[in-house]
Order: sequence, then C-alpha cells, then structure tokens
Amino acid sequence: MVSILVLHGPNLNLLGTREPAYYGTLSLEELDTRLVEIGLEKGIELRTFQSNIEGKLIEALHDAAGWAVGVVFNPGAYTHTSIALRDAVAGIGIPVVEVHLSNVYARERFRHKSFIAPVCVGKITGFGWRSYIYGLEALIDILNC
Amino acid sequence: MVSILVLHGPNLNLLGTREPAYYGTLSLEELDTRLVEIGLEKGIELRTFQSNIEGKLIEALHDAAGWAVGVVFNPGAYTHTSIALRDAVAGIGIPVVEVHLSNVYARERFRHKSFIAPVCVGKITGFGWRSYIYGLEALIDILNC
Amino acid sequence: MVSILVLHGPNLNLLGTREPAYYGTLSLEELDTRLVEIGLEKGIELRTFQSNIEGKLIEALHDAAGWAVGVVFNPGAYTHTSIALRDAVAGIGIPVVEVHLSNVYARERFRHKSFIAPVCVGKITGFGWRSYIYGLEALIDILNC
Amino acid sequence: MVSILVLHGPNLNLLGTREPAYYGTLSLEELDTRLVEIGLEKGIELRTFQSNIEGKLIEALHDAAGWAVGVVFNPGAYTHTSIALRDAVAGIGIPVVEVHLSNVYARERFRHKSFIAPVCVGKITGFGWRSYIYGLEALIDILNC
Amino acid sequence: MVSILVLHGPNLNLLGTREPAYYGTLSLEELDTRLVEIGLEKGIELRTFQSNIEGKLIEALHDAAGWAVGVVFNPGAYTHTSIALRDAVAGIGIPVVEVHLSNVYARERFRHKSFIAPVCVGKITGFGWRSYIYGLEALIDILNC
Amino acid sequence: MVSILVLHGPNLNLLGTREPAYYGTLSLEELDTRLVEIGLEKGIELRTFQSNIEGKLIEALHDAAGWAVGVVFNPGAYTHTSIALRDAVAGIGIPVVEVHLSNVYARERFRHKSFIAPVCVGKITGFGWRSYIYGLEALIDILNC
Amino acid sequence: MVSILVLHGPNLNLLGTREPAYYGTLSLEELDTRLVEIGLEKGIELRTFQSNIEGKLIEALHDAAGWAVGVVFNPGAYTHTSIALRDAVAGIGIPVVEVHLSNVYARERFRHKSFIAPVCVGKITGFGWRSYIYGLEALIDILNC
Amino acid sequence: MVSILVLHGPNLNLLGTREPAYYGTLSLEELDTRLVEIGLEKGIELRTFQSNIEGKLIEALHDAAGWAVGVVFNPGAYTHTSIALRDAVAGIGIPVVEVHLSNVYARERFRHKSFIAPVCVGKITGFGWRSYIYGLEALIDILNC
Amino acid sequence: MVSILVLHGPNLNLLGTREPAYYGTLSLEELDTRLVEIGLEKGIELRTFQSNIEGKLIEALHDAAGWAVGVVFNPGAYTHTSIALRDAVAGIGIPVVEVHLSNVYARERFRHKSFIAPVCVGKITGFGWRSYIYGLEALIDILNC
Amino acid sequence: MVSILVLHGPNLNLLGTREPAYYGTLSLEELDTRLVEIGLEKGIELRTFQSNIEGKLIEALHDAAGWAVGVVFNPGAYTHTSIALRDAVAGIGIPVVEVHLSNVYARERFRHKSFIAPVCVGKITGFGWRSYIYGLEALIDILNC
Amino acid sequence: MVSILVLHGPNLNLLGTREPAYYGTLSLEELDTRLVEIGLEKGIELRTFQSNIEGKLIEALHDAAGWAVGVVFNPGAYTHTSIALRDAVAGIGIPVVEVHLSNVYARERFRHKSFIAPVCVGKITGFGWRSYIYGLEALIDILNC
Amino acid sequence: MVSILVLHGPNLNLLGTREPAYYGTLSLEELDTRLVEIGLEKGIELRTFQSNIEGKLIEALHDAAGWAVGVVFNPGAYTHTSIALRDAVAGIGIPVVEVHLSNVYARERFRHKSFIAPVCVGKITGFGWRSYIYGLEALIDILNC
Repeated sequence: MVSILVLHGPNLNLLGTREPAYYGTLSLEELDTRLVEIGLEKGIELRTFQSNIEGKLIEALHDAAGWAVGVVFNPGAYTHTSIALRDAVAGIGIPVVEVHLSNVYARERFRHKSFIAPVCVGKITGFGWRSYIYGLEALIDILNC
Repeated sequence: MVSILVLHGPNLNLLGTREPAYYGTLSLEELDTRLVEIGLEKGIELRTFQSNIEGKLIEALHDAAGWAVGVVFNPGAYTHTSIALRDAVAGIGIPVVEVHLSNVYARERFRHKSFIAPVCVGKITGFGWRSYIYGLEALIDILNC
Repeated sequence: MVSILVLHGPNLNLLGTREPAYYGTLSLEELDTRLVEIGLEKGIELRTFQSNIEGKLIEALHDAAGWAVGVVFNPGAYTHTSIALRDAVAGIGIPVVEVHLSNVYARERFRHKSFIAPVCVGKITGFGWRSYIYGLEALIDILNC
Repeated sequence: MVSILVLHGPNLNLLGTREPAYYGTLSLEELDTRLVEIGLEKGIELRTFQSNIEGKLIEALHDAAGWAVGVVFNPGAYTHTSIALRDAVAGIGIPVVEVHLSNVYARERFRHKSFIAPVCVGKITGFGWRSYIYGLEALIDILNC
Repeated sequence: MVSILVLHGPNLNLLGTREPAYYGTLSLEELDTRLVEIGLEKGIELRTFQSNIEGKLIEALHDAAGWAVGVVFNPGAYTHTSIALRDAVAGIGIPVVEVHLSNVYARERFRHKSFIAPVCVGKITGFGWRSYIYGLEALIDILNC
Repeated sequence: MVSILVLHGPNLNLLGTREPAYYGTLSLEELDTRLVEIGLEKGIELRTFQSNIEGKLIEALHDAAGWAVGVVFNPGAYTHTSIALRDAVAGIGIPVVEVHLSNVYARERFRHKSFIAPVCVGKITGFGWRSYIYGLEALIDILNC
Repeated sequence: MVSILVLHGPNLNLLGTREPAYYGTLSLEELDTRLVEIGLEKGIELRTFQSNIEGKLIEALHDAAGWAVGVVFNPGAYTHTSIALRDAVAGIGIPVVEVHLSNVYARERFRHKSFIAPVCVGKITGFGWRSYIYGLEALIDILNC
Repeated sequence: MVSILVLHGPNLNLLGTREPAYYGTLSLEELDTRLVEIGLEKGIELRTFQSNIEGKLIEALHDAAGWAVGVVFNPGAYTHTSIALRDAVAGIGIPVVEVHLSNVYARERFRHKSFIAPVCVGKITGFGWRSYIYGLEALIDILNC
Repeated sequence: MVSILVLHGPNLNLLGTREPAYYGTLSLEELDTRLVEIGLEKGIELRTFQSNIEGKLIEALHDAAGWAVGVVFNPGAYTHTSIALRDAVAGIGIPVVEVHLSNVYARERFRHKSFIAPVCVGKITGFGWRSYIYGLEALIDILNC
Repeated sequence: MVSILVLHGPNLNLLGTREPAYYGTLSLEELDTRLVEIGLEKGIELRTFQSNIEGKLIEALHDAAGWAVGVVFNPGAYTHTSIALRDAVAGIGIPVVEVHLSNVYARERFRHKSFIAPVCVGKITGFGWRSYIYGLEALIDILNC
Repeated sequence: MVSILVLHGPNLNLLGTREPAYYGTLSLEELDTRLVEIGLEKGIELRTFQSNIEGKLIEALHDAAGWAVGVVFNPGAYTHTSIALRDAVAGIGIPVVEVHLSNVYARERFRHKSFIAPVCVGKITGFGWRSYIYGLEALIDILNC
Repeated sequence: MVSILVLHGPNLNLLGTREPAYYGTLSLEELDTRLVEIGLEKGIELRTFQSNIEGKLIEALHDAAGWAVGVVFNPGAYTHTSIALRDAVAGIGIPVVEVHLSNVYARERFRHKSFIAPVCVGKITGFGWRSYIYGLEALIDILNC
C-alpha cells in the first residue's frame, strides 16, 4: 500500500477555533481523520503531520522522500515568505500539491505571493477543508498517470 | 436537473494542438465530452462554451445567471488583464470556480496575477484537463453545502 | 438637430441588477429613456449604444465621428485596461466626456487608473446615473463655446 | 434657505491671470459672483472662501459643518499631497464634491493622484469654471435624494 | 504559390484620417493594395485582414496556421495589453513579424511594453507604411533560409 | 518646575466629534485638562497647543526650545507628509515623543509612513487618549535618566 | 489573579551584551525580574518567555490564549518578516501590544515594516527596556476599560 | 531701482542655531543684512521674507509678481513636498532661482526630489549662505540678458 | 554619391565567434563587405566603423554629421545604458536607424529598455545580419521622401 | 588551538542528493570531514553544525561567540529572508564569512538579495564545496591580520 | 598661482551647434577662453579638458589631484549613469563642483538622477555657460574659507 | 605554462591612495607583483592589466580569449552599470571569476547590483587584496576539475 504525507503548516493546529469565517469550524484532528478514511477507501495510507516550525516542515518533507509517493501540503503563512520550504519541495523529487483553506486571493495582497507554487505540481485554494480532498484526489490521479 | 456552465477563454479552441508541453494533447471537443459525461453521472446538465472574445465571455456569464447554478471558468490569458470579466463574475451572483490547465505560477511573472480569483469561490491550477474535473466537483460540493 | 452618442461599456447591460450598492437600481433601458428625453428637451438627438466587446466600442466611436458632435462615454472596466479605446477617442476628432456611475476612487486601486481620461475633455465620477446627465450638459456647453 | 460652502484652494486667487491656457480668463471674484447668482436662482445661499493655507482650508471645512449642508471643493494642488485635508473632509459628516478647472489627467503624473477623492461623493474635472457649476448642481441633487 | 497573412489591429481602419502626424495619410485600403502588389511581384499571395476585436485577431491567427507560411502583424494598441494575442502567436507555429507605423519608443511610456515581441521573430517600428514592406521582406527572407 | 509642551496637529480640534470609532469621544479640551492634571501630580507644568496649520506647529516647536524640556507630539496627518515638521523636530535639540490615538498600522497604507518618527525618541500608537499619557510618562523617564 | 504573557523574540537572549548602543546594558533576566515585580505590584502574574524559533513563539501565543488575558510582545526581527506570527496574534483572540527596545524608524528601511502591528492593539517603540513597562501598563488599562 | 525678493522657507528662522553641521552659524538676520548690502552695491533693492507657513510663502510669491523682477527662493523642506508652491512659481511669470544651503544630494533620499526645480530657471545647492549670493548673481545676469 | 555610416557598438567585433545562437556565424568583416556592396548597387557609399568604447562611438556620430546623410546604428549593449549616446544621436541632426541582430525582447528584461530608440527614426530587431540590410533600405527610403 | 564554527543552513543535509546540477554530489558528511581535516592541517579545530531551523542557527551563532574565533556560514535560503539571522551575526562580535555553493546570481532574482552579507566580513559564491575552503582560508587570514 | 581644472563631459565638444534651445550658441572654445580669462583676473590658472570617453574623464580627475586645488565639472550625460566617475570624484580628495548648462530638472526623468552630486561640494544647474562661472566662483570661495 | 589574465577596472590605479578605509594601503603595482609571484609558485603565468575605459576592458577580455585559460576580474564600478562588459564575459568562452576589494553589500544600495556576476563562475567580495588571491586559487581549481 503506497503512502502519502499530508503536511500542515503554522497555526493550522488552531483549526476550528481560529477565525472561523476564514477557516471553518472543523478541527485539525477531525480533518485528519476524514482524510485518513478517504485514503483508506482508495487503498492509500495517509500520514499527517503539523508543525509551526518552518525547519520541522522542511524535515518532514525530507523525511517523506524516503517513504511517501507524494505530498499534500498546506504551507499556511510560510507560503508567502519561505524560500527554504520551496527549496525543500524542489529537492525531494516527489510530487507536491499545494492547498489552502481560504481564497488567499480575496485577502491581503501579501497573501497572493507563493514561493512554493512554482515548484509544486498544482495548487488548490478556497474550498475550506475540501481543498485537501481535491488535492489528495489530484495527487492520486497524477501518480496513476 | 440543475445546470452548470463550463466556460473556456481565449486560445482554448487550440487545445490538443497548441504547446502540448503546457496544455496536453486532449482536444477541447474531447474535454467537453468528458465533462458532460461526468456531469450526467452526477445528475447535472453541463453546457460548454468557448470564445476568444472577451465581451462574448462576459455575455456568457451574464446569460448563465439566468439558467445555471454555477460556473467552471478557465479565463485563459484574460485572467491576467481583464477587469471587465472580473466585474461580470462579481455581478452575476452565482458561484464561479477558476481553473487553469497549466501551473501558471511556474511560468512568466505576468501569469501570476489574476483579476478574476478574488471574486471567485476558489481556484485550481496545474492539473491539465483534470483541473476542470476538480473544479466541477468543488462547485457541486459548494452548491450542496 | 445635432446628435450625440451615449456609449456604455462592459457589464452596463446589467445595470439595475448588478451590485446595486455601487450602481443603483435604474436599468440601462430606463437610463437611456431618460437621457433621450433630456436630449430632446435641449433640441439634441441622443443615440445610445452598449457593448461588452472592446472592439465594438471602438467601432461605435469610429462610426460616431461621421454623425455625432460629441460623445458621453462610460468605458466601464475598460477604462483601466484599454489603450485601444484611448486611441479611438484620440483619433475621432470630436469631444468625448468620460463618466462613471460609482466613485472609482473609493474602490480598488486598479480602478484609479484611466487610460481614457487624458484624451477626453473632462471626467465626471460618482453621481450614479446623474453622472451621465452632468456629462451631457457639459458636452453641450463645450459645443456651444 | 439652506447654505453651501464653495471652497477654493491654493493659487486660485490668481484665477484669470495665471496660466490662462489651463485655467481660463475669468477671475475668482467673477466666478464667485456667478456661482452666488446661480445659487440664489435655486434658492440656496452660497458662501465662498479661498485660502492658500492648508490649515485654513481645514478650518473652513470644520466650520462649514456647523452651517452648511454640503461643500463644493477645489483643493488645487493640495489634492495631491494633503492627507490632513482628506481627514477634514472625512470628519465633518456633510457631503463634499471635488472639482477641478483643468483636466488633471492630461497633465503631469503627480496630478493624477487625489487623496481627497476617496472621501468625497464624486469628482468633476476638466470643464473650466463650469466644473463648479456641475459640482454645485450635483451637490443639490444629492441633498434632494 | 505560398500565402502570407497581413494582419492589422485596432483603429487601423482609420488609417489616413486618424492623427496623420503619427500615422501618415495613406488609407488602409491603399496600403493593402500596395502590399498585395509587392507580394505578387515576389510570387507570394498576400491576404489582409483588419479587426478592432482582440478575439477576431486571435482567430485570424489561428486560421492562418492552416494556410499561411507566416504573418506580418501590426497589433496596434493591443501590443501593450494583450497576453491572449501573445498566446495565439506562440501557439500557431508559423513565424510572425511585428510591425508598427510610428516610433512607439518616442511616445508614451505605456507604448514601450510589448507582450507580442518576445514570441515574434523580430520587430520593425517607426517607418510608417513602409514598416509593413520591410516586415514582409524580412518574413520572406526568413522563410527562404 | 520644568515644563513640557503637548502639541496637537491637524483635525485634533474635532476630537470627540470626528469619527469616534477611530478617535474616541473625549474632547480635546477634556484631554488637555486630564494631561495638565497628571503633569501637576508629577510636578511638571504642561502647556498644550493645537493647530491645523503646519507652519504654526513648526513655530510651536521652535518656541518650545526656549522654555520646555521636551515635547509630546501628535502630528496627525502631517506625520505622513511633512518633512518641514521633521526638520523642526530635528532642529530644536530637545526630546520629542510621537503619539497617535489610533493604530495607524491597521488603517490605509499611506498612514504607515512617518517622516517624524526617525528624529523622535520613540513612538506610541493605538491606545486612544492614553497614548498621550504613556508618551508623557516616557518623556519624563527619559529626562530623568 | 489574572496573568499576562511577556513574550521575547529572536536574539533578545543576548540583551545586555549585544550592540548596547541600540539595546542597552540590562540583561534579559534582569528585565524579566523587573517586569514580574511591577506586575506583582499591580496584582498581576507575569510569565515571561523567550525563543529564537518563530514556531515556538507561535506556540507560546497559542498557549497563552488558554491562561493569559493579554500579551506584551517584542517580536524582534520577526516583526518585519513573519506572516505566520501575525496570523497567530490575529487568531488567539486576546489583546497583544507590540513593543520594541530601539526606535526602529531611525534604523534600516526594512525595519520600518511590521506585519504584526496591524493586528495588535497598539505599538510602543524606542524607549529601551521601558517600552515593556509602558506596554504592560497600556495592556492593563485596555483590560480595565 | 529694480527690486528682488529673497524668500526663505520653513525652519530657516532657526539659521545659525539649528544643526550647524548642515547649515552653518550665520543667523538669518545676518544673512539678510549681507544680501541687502550686496544688492545695494549692484543697484538693486532686496526685500527679504521668511515664513514657516506654506500658504504664506505662496502669497509672498503672488505678491512679488507686483513689484519684483525676480525671486531667489530657498523653499527648505517644502521643496520636496509642495506642488502648491510649484504652481505659485509657475504662475507668477517672473524668474525664480532655487537655492539650498546644504548639498541635499548628500542627505536622505527624500531630499533629492524637487517639485520646484522644473519651473525655476536654475538651482544652486551646497554652498552654505553663499548659495544665495550666487543665486542673486545668476538672477541679475538673467534679467540683464 | 551620398554617404552613410554603418556604426557597430561593443562586442560586435566578435561577430561570428560569440554566442552564435544569438548572433549567427557571419563575421563583422563579411557583414561589412556585404553592406558596402549593397550600398554600391544603390549608388551609396557606405563607411563602416566599430568600437567598443562608448566615447569613440559618440565621436563617430559627431564626425558623421560632417559627411554622411544618415546612420545605421547597432549600439549593442550601450543601447540599454548610454544616455551620452542618445544625446549624440539627438545632437547631430541627421537620421539614425537603430538595428539589432537578436530579438532583444526575447532575452533578459534589461535588454528591453532603449535609451537610443526615442531619438531614432525607427528600430529593427531580430533578423540577424539582415537587420542591417532592412535598416539601410529604410534609411534610403527616408532620405528619398 | 583556536576553534572555528562551520555553520550550514536549511536543506544542506540533503547535499549530494538534492539537485546535483546546482549543489554537486558530495554529501554534507564528506564535506565536513574534508573541512575538519583542512582545519587540522592549519592547526585549527573546526566544529560543524547543520540545522533547518532558523532559530537553531541563531542559537548556534550565539553559542559560537563563547568558544569560536570566527564562523564560516552558509545560510542557504535563509540568506534572502532572515533579518533575525542578520541580527545574530551582527550581535556576536566575531567575524563571519558568508559562503554559497551555487552562483546565486545566475539563479532566480529573489536569490540575489542577502540580508546577511552587509554584516559579514565578505562573501564567496559559486565554487561548489570549495566555497567553504576559500571562506575558511579567508577567515584565517583575517584573524591573522 | 594655484590651478583649477575645468572638465567637460560627453557631447560638450558640440557646444554651440547641438540643440541650441538647451545649450546656447557659444562654442566650447569660446567658453573655455572666457573661463581662462576670468581665472586670470582672479589670479588662478584654469586648465580645461573635454572628453567623450568616461575613462578619460576619470583619468583627468586622477591627474588633477596632482596639480589642481579643485575641479569645476560638467559630467554631461555621464552624470546620470556613471558610478565610476563618482568613485573618481570621491577618491581624489580635492573639492569638485558639479555644473550643468540646462535645467536638467525640466527635462526627461532620467536626467534628474545624479550619481556625482552626493560626492561633490555643491551643484549649479540651468544658467547656460554662466553655470561654469558661478561654479568657478563657488570653488574659489570654498578654497578661501 | 598556462596563462591567466588579472583584469582591474576603473579607479583601481588609485589603489593605496584612494579611500584607504575601503580599499587598503597596498598599491596596484604591489598587488600585481604579489599576484604574479603567487602565480609563478603555482606554475602559472599571470598577466595584469588595468584600464579606466570600459571599452578597453572589453577588448582586454576579447584578447584574453586568445591566450589565457581564465580571468580574475575586478570590474570596479562598471560592475553595477555595464551590460557591455557582461556581454564580453559571456562571449569569450573562458571562465571568469569576479572579485571585489570591499564588501559591496555593506555600502550604497546601487553597489549591490552586479551585471557581471550572472555570467561569471563565482564571486568573491570583501577581503581586500586577498580577494584576488582567493579568486586566483578558485580559478585554478576550476581549471583543474
């Protein structure tokens, strides 16, 4: 059974409590549970990880290169500032799909810039927790091509 | 049976022949056929329309407000230059999902800007013709919420 | 009896239904009727035309050079992006007054730029449908000078 | 009888003598006389005031809040540099219409920016002394709505 | 006999009447006649087309891919704003030469930018109607290499 | 008994009536009274002055150099535009603390820039009328160091 | 007894040894001791925390939401680069006051930008270790309102 | 005997006491005395005026148009921010020479910009109080041409 | 027999050996021979000159004003940086045509800017050594008009 | 025996496996071994440390101030984004040499900016793992001066 | 007898013939003669030099450091582009006064920037050939201080 | 015995006398002697050349392509402005190492930009005359790979 990493960036541990207008009321734990179930239905093992520390996210990506066939990654606010995460994505040699809960383009200008997107396969934004589902589906389709 | 508009912007009539490295080898007709079939499976009537003329796309959006519950829209190169299309999307009062075949963020800088995205529900880029599939799926999920 | 063109740009066919907070509840047809009546009172034939297609607006300006003594022009969102419309205004040799329904300066930054204004006689913004009335009045005064 | 303030900014005391190509040959006194007459015809008392001092214009706006129902304001060159005047307009709670004699958009780039416009009802530029007339008319229409 | 498309963009139908200081006094019809004659002398069939509508120009380019060996293209004001035309030029796989009547570099700054030039073979500006002649000559030379 | 100047910039005479969401409901007179009282408790004479005229504020600073040991200064909107005030602060040789009622960083972008701050000792923003109190306290602490 | 978090960002552990011209000679430990004492005098429990790791500061903010009524936060150099910290401040729902030891506006241009300030209550800069005292005082006043 | 205005802008009343490294130790009164004497030697009446108020400087320029043949003007910090002063210089129809005590180009970037210079005859910067002498000499030479 | 200068800028002496992908395999000597021959066929004496030194190119332009009726000029990399060459072109009073071997618009962004083009008659880029031929032809046509 | 810290930033643990076109095939462990050997030959103890966490790198710098005479530092992607690392380098009072494996100036524009370089002694880029050798040599030379 | 260098930059050898609207009708030779005479009257030997070659101007500055007490320098168009000339001025340790014939601030924007001015004593622009006279006078005054 | 060119740009002939704080007290002649000796020790013939003339540096690079295996190049101030030198470096087909005496990143912003670096192998800055030594060493290592 192949494995996929679902990686959550900074502040996503607050999911469900933080600014629900932007991010919805589902908690991170509930989201992870749903994703794991959907993965299982598709015969895929999902491992999930969240960190608020840029360097820990980098290391999770490095580590995934050893066991996962791809990554669904919500880099949160590091999307807009982290070249180091970009380099990690570019360096690991497995496909990464960038996902966001909110429509970042309808928010502040500094959220429109992504250092990560150019080295990902694709990007999905604005569909709440479902962004992860579509990202997972897209990743599986890519791997099957 | 509810209806959804799938709207294709400029140069997409060349699909399958133009720069296949970016856009794949599926023709627009074949893509439309697949989308219509997927729609039918989900009990949704899909109508598709392509135009190279900005004003015709505006009018297709206006028109859709009368019969469709939502739009899956690939504005092509008008994404980056058309405030008039943005106003049309904002003015029609039904949800629009922006989709792109290629990962625009891995291309020229002027393709990173979207006038349309801030007034859409969400945006999906980089998955080839499958971007439309995920966009359609997302739109249906939104309408069911 | 002299004639004047009242030219409406993209999305103005939605007038009365689209974002009434910005644009009011009067329909385009009702607006045109009012303008024609006011024109008649002043002994002027008004012809009105709306298009969502940039090139059709260009051609309406070209055409007006043959029969009209001036133009009241609401270029809508093309105001901010169309150098081709600017060239048409500069090329026809009759005075053009730029009008806008909403106060574009109180909206997004990209609406502050006008390619059209430098080649018009003057500009009137922010008074709803009455912007057209004042624009018409100003045009008549200019022609009488 | 309701009252309206007509407020003239810096250098407008030179009207009629300064750069007539831009500003015409009518003196400020003559302009004020015309405006007062037009006001009287419409049953409105117009009071006019000119100052070259930014702070005096601010105070004229503050003062008007006590006796006027609205302001027709030509902020002259302070349009482009004064946030303090903007704050005064925003702070007095009566409608202000911004007017300009020349088409500022056909002049130097630094004249295209207005700090005042976003907090005004609307803006009229380019019609010489008649800009004031249309501004007055527009203000009266707004007050009658 | 090989065929070449000569494609004229917005406002070029005004040629000969519009701003002769920039564009000369030759009409578009006269220009086309000259070009066709020069083509015949060289054993080449020239077909000419003008449109003010961006999308029609896009389609003329698409269409030319089926019958022409190259294009001489004056995109007019769309040069500076149209990414969609750029995509059409890039997508059709036959050489395109960009030409302009006036020296765009001696005019407003916004005319210095060309979205089209990077995907053309070369660019010729500033020689009035002769820019087309040199462009045609250059295209023939390229095709003979 | 040492003396300190509390200097208020443009529009602050409207305090308590103007945009209370930003500026609170305390009038300038009431604020001054409170500040004078607090000063007296600390054995300091406070003199307060407000002007809407940039040049009068400059002169108040010049004058203070002759009798005050420091200044608590709210430059209002001149903060963002006045190099002349900056030069006055830099030129008088006594410490100046910049204070603001509202959190200018949560407002328009043009309010983020301060010409005054680099030549002040420090800056306090966002605490309503209490910004003055903390500024006064800070100034006293500095003078005691 | 209510509790407040005093949070110190990167390099503040060097306080007293690093660039004393900017930051003074008081060590972080001494500063914390003083702050705790002042808090006790006011009947408030202060807990202090320093980290050089952006993600640890994010987590300290998250954690504080569970036990503190507010935060006095010196984000150090992360002020100018961290959108993730901004999101944490915005997400925790308790008031945060931004403080800085040095007058950042008298230093390099890149220190003038704060991602944190727009989501804080207010900001205090330039008073050395006393910036914390005033920030604490301000926070208490806010909580008492 | 012809007359010339020597006009001093904001903060120049501090001359001799303020930042002597930049501005020297000569007082404004002493400078004016010297200038008047030099004028008399050349058979010219010099009148000198200083104001910290932008509008008063504007009015001094307006007034000079009635009695002076030219102006030597040190606009101080208003050089960099005042379009209203520029308009006054452009509007009075007598030659104005811009002078500065310090070499503004060796100071902060915002002092490099001059709104006044483009409408003056010439500009002299960096020679301390002698900048006025050379400016006066240049003005006399211009008037004699 | 009239004479024309063909002027080559920096690095063009490397022609034929340097980056042939951009510049082709023809040497400068061979190019000059061809151009001279073409000139002779048209009854024109061509003189050619190459220098890597900006000032020598300036002097060649100055000198040409004494014997040539026009110049075909490839300023090479000085195109993008030399205002002194621009001034020389503007100062000599004979027509200059700017030519480039490569399509500079398809290369680095800093090659898109030309200081020379605004003061030339026209510009031809992208046709390899043939750019000179077309430039020569254009210059002759201009001189014959 | 004096000691020097060799500090490696984010993603350098991937050395030898990640994008070998940019970074070569030597692993970090092998590089460290070589460096330690070279150090020993020169009578210097080298300690090496790598972290993906910005804050850990900051702490390694702080710590080095206690035992090392200098640092050879490859900040990786944090070079371009970290003001906190800059502050750490500036704060520790021992010389730091910045090194990079690849020629960052031949890569994306955002890699041209270094926040670290201005507070280092010097910078060496583009020589693969040898950049470290030259950096070490340079540091030793500096310490011997 | 002390000596001063008068240094003329590119295109100044054309003086009197080139664009007389900007530069007047006096030839460089005539200007130099006048300057030498004025120098002699003041007991100063003037040596004049003109070059179109940036590097020759640099060397003239280097050379002057050996025999001159100061330089009057018109760097022409190199003013706006040459950092090498700036370094030469900064490196020679004798005072340099920058002069310009035309009012560069009333011309194209790229002429407003001076790399030279920040390292000169002062700058004089806009007085035709007299700019040199005032510059010479200023230099002598500086040397006498 | 292989040969290497050591090329010095503008103002480097002043080495040892000019701004020693930045550039040290070693003269260019002494530096060249040292470099030649180090070369000989390594069995390499070094030829050194300095010019203040951009075009002469270009030609020295062209010439070196005929006899040298690489170049150590300090382009001085031309680093920041010369595209022509960049083209020469790119065109000669032998490796070039860019070196600088001072840490350009700790100086004015316009010294941070290098047109040369992207086409060099690597860059070494900030180590005084030793930058050349390390550059030479690096070049030899590259040639030996």
